[in-house]
Amino acid sequence: MPGIVVKPRSRIFHGHDWVYSSEVQKVFGNPEPGEVISLKDFRDRPLGTAIYNPNSQIVARRISRRKQKLEPEFFKRRISQSIQLREDSPGVDPNLCRVVWSESDALPGIIVDRYGDHLVLQTLTLAMDRCRDLIVYTLVELLAPKSIIHRNDSPMLKAEGIEERVELVYGDNPGAFVVEANGVIFEVDLLDGQKTGLYLDQLDAHAAIAKLAKGKRVLDCFCNQGGFALACAKAGAASVTAVDISESAIDSVKRNAELNGVEIEAIKHNAFDYLKHCEEKFDLVILDPPSFTRNKKTLNDAMRGYKEIHLRGIKLLEKGGIVSTYCCSHHATRELFLENIVSASVDAKRTLRLIATHGQRLDHPVIPAIPETEYLKGFTLQLTPSR
Amino acid sequence: MPGIVVKPRSRIFHGHDWVYSSEVQKVFGNPEPGEVISLKDFRDRPLGTAIYNPNSQIVARRISRRKQKLEPEFFKRRISQSIQLREDSPGVDPNLCRVVWSESDALPGIIVDRYGDHLVLQTLTLAMDRCRDLIVYTLVELLAPKSIIHRNDSPMLKAEGIEERVELVYGDNPGAFVVEANGVIFEVDLLDGQKTGLYLDQLDAHAAIAKLAKGKRVLDCFCNQGGFALACAKAGAASVTAVDISESAIDSVKRNAELNGVEIEAIKHNAFDYLKHCEEKFDLVILDPPSFTRNKKTLNDAMRGYKEIHLRGIKLLEKGGIVSTYCCSHHATRELFLENIVSASVDAKRTLRLIATHGQRLDHPVIPAIPETEYLKGFTLQLTPSR
Repeated sequence: MPGIVVKPRSRIFHGHDWVYSSEVQKVFGNPEPGEVISLKDFRDRPLGTAIYNPNSQIVARRISRRKQKLEPEFFKRRISQSIQLREDSPGVDPNLCRVVWSESDALPGIIVDRYGDHLVLQTLTLAMDRCRDLIVYTLVELLAPKSIIHRNDSPMLKAEGIEERVELVYGDNPGAFVVEANGVIFEVDLLDGQKTGLYLDQLDAHAAIAKLAKGKRVLDCFCNQGGFALACAKAGAASVTAVDISESAIDSVKRNAELNGVEIEAIKHNAFDYLKHCEEKFDLVILDPPSFTRNKKTLNDAMRGYKEIHLRGIKLLEKGGIVSTYCCSHHATRELFLENIVSASVDAKRTLRLIATHGQRLDHPVIPAIPETEYLKGFTLQLTPSR
Repeated sequence: MPGIVVKPRSRIFHGHDWVYSSEVQKVFGNPEPGEVISLKDFRDRPLGTAIYNPNSQIVARRISRRKQKLEPEFFKRRISQSIQLREDSPGVDPNLCRVVWSESDALPGIIVDRYGDHLVLQTLTLAMDRCRDLIVYTLVELLAPKSIIHRNDSPMLKAEGIEERVELVYGDNPGAFVVEANGVIFEVDLLDGQKTGLYLDQLDAHAAIAKLAKGKRVLDCFCNQGGFALACAKAGAASVTAVDISESAIDSVKRNAELNGVEIEAIKHNAFDYLKHCEEKFDLVILDPPSFTRNKKTLNDAMRGYKEIHLRGIKLLEKGGIVSTYCCSHHATRELFLENIVSASVDAKRTLRLIATHGQRLDHPVIPAIPETEYLKGFTLQLTPSR
C-alpha cells in the first residue's frame, strides 16, 4: 500500500487524525488522490490507515489506527456505531439528528442528517465521495429510509476538487414536510428548499433559552428559520421579534409561526443596522449570527463584528435583562469570545453574570484530541442589579 | 474620604473590582486598613467606593461604582438581592445553597452558606470582618435563621491580617443534623464537625453524573463526604467504590451511606496509589481532587498531578467507560485542563468523546469581568469504540 511518512511532532502524535501538507516527511508508492494509504512514523512504525488528497491542505485523514479498506463491512460497522451513539445520547432525538458527523465518527468527510424517514448525505472528501453509492447502500440497509438526498453543495468541496451536486439518490422526493423538535413544528424541504433542514446543533440551546422566555419581550437576531424565536414564542414569551437579512429565512419564520399557532414579528433587515437603530427595550436578546470568519486571518475583523453586536445587544436590555450569544467559528476560542462580551459590557457600563454556557448538541460529538470538532460555543448572561 | 488613584490600564478599567498594589498610583488622605475609601482615575474621575487593606496584595476591593458607606441599608439591599438571585436560579434549592458569595454578589469577603434554618458565615476581608455584627443582624432580619455560625478558619485570612475563629454568633448550636440534596441525605455538623457542610458548588455535577450511573461499576476518587458516590448509589449503580485519604471523610461516607440505605465500599487510601495499583475495571471513574495548586508558581506540578490521575483513571475504564474529572483551581484554565486529559488519553492509547462540561452551580455566580469568580471546571468523557 502506498503511504506517507509523517514528520516527528506532528499533530497525529497528539491524538489528531489529520496530516497537514507541512507535516509530510515523505510520500511513497505514488498514491492517487482519493486513494487509501498507510501512515508511518519516521521509524517506519505504522500509524494506521488514511484517505489521501494532495490537493487539500489536509493531505491525509486517518480512518483507522489499523489496516483498513473502504469496504462494505467498514461502513456498516462505523455507521452502526454512529447510529447507536445517537440512540444512547440523552437529549438527542434519534429521528431528528445528525446521524454521522465526519471526523467525530471516524468517517472523515461523511455527514448524514436524519429527518424522520428522510436522510441528507454529504460527502466532503474525495475518497468518501467516490464511495457514495456504497454509503447510500449501507444507510438503506441500516436505517431503511424512504429517501436519501445527496446534498453536496458545501463551499468546502472546492478544496477537495469535488464537483457540487444536489440530487435524489434513493427513494422519492418527499417535497416539503414537517418535523417536530422540542414541541416546535418546522417545515423542511430537503431537496428543493432554499433553506433546507434545520440547525440541528442548536436544538439544545433553543430549548434551554425557551425555558427563560416566559412573559419576556424577546429579540432573536440572525434568526434564520426562527429556531430560538419559535421556541420562545411556544414557551409563552410576551412578544417575539425575529430579524434576518434573508428573505427566504423570514418567509420560513412566518410560515413556521403559522404552523405553530404563535405570533412572531418577523423582520427582513440587516441585524447590525436593526440593533443600531432599535429604540425598543427587550428582556431577552439572542444573537446567533452565521460565522463571521472561516479562517484565522479574518479573526480580528470577526471579533470587531461580535463586539459591535454585543455592545448594541446589551444596550437594548431592560433591567435584569438577558443576552444569549453564540459563535460557530472554531477559530474564535471560548476565552476570546467571552472576553469580547465582557469588553462590550464594560463599554456599555453594565455588569453581566454568566448563567449558562452552551455547546453543540451531542449528535455533533466533540473529540477533544481533534479540536476542530468543537466549534459551537454560546453564553447566556444576565445584567446584575446596578452596583 | 481618603482614597487611591489607580494607574491607567489597571484591571478596574476592564470591569474588574480589584486594585492590586502594583496598580496604585497614589494613596491620599491616609486611609487605615479596613477603611472605606474612594477610587479615582489619574484624571481625578471617580471610580467608586472600595474597602482598603494595604497588607493584602489586593489593596482595594470595590463595593460600589457610587459613593457608599458600610451602613445597614447597604447590607440589607445587597444581601436581599443575593437571596433573590438564588430563589430565581433554576436548579438551586434556596434552602441549601451559598446565599452570598463575595465579589460575585458585590460583597467582597462575605460568604454565607445556608443549610435550612442554619447559616454559616465567613468574613474574609478586614472591613467586612469588622462589620460582622451588622451582617449577622441583617441575616437574622432577612432569613430568620435558627442559628448562625461564624466559621472563619480559611487559609486566606492570614493575608488580610484577620484572626481565625469559629463561634456560634446567633441562636443555639444545632449539633449534627441532616439535609437533603437531590434526594440524597447528608449529615452535617456546622460548628463542631471535622467536615462541616457540603461542597454546594458541586451539587449540579453530582446529579448530572448520577444520571449516567445506573447499572454501572463506579469509582469515586477523592470522594470527600461522598457526594458523587452517594448520588450514583442512589441512582442504581451496580457497585460504588469511594476512596479518600482522610479518615473523617471515609467515616462520613459510611455514615451517609447508612442514612441513605445504600452500599458503598469506602476505602481510606491515597487516591494516587489506589489508582496506580487497582486491578479492577470500572464503567465510570470520577476524579474530583482538592485543588493541586493555589497559585501560578506551582501550576506545572499541579498539571503533572492531574496528568497522572487522568492516565491512571482512563486505564481503569472498561470498554465504553466514562471518566468525569474536575479542577477547582482558577489558575488551570479550561483549555489547559482539557489538553491535560487529551494528553493522558494519547498515552493510554484511547480516544475520548466529550459528553458533558460542568461548572460551579448558579449559587456561586460567575462574573466574567472578574475572572477569579470562575474556578470550577469539569469534563465528562467517554471512550469511543476502538478506531
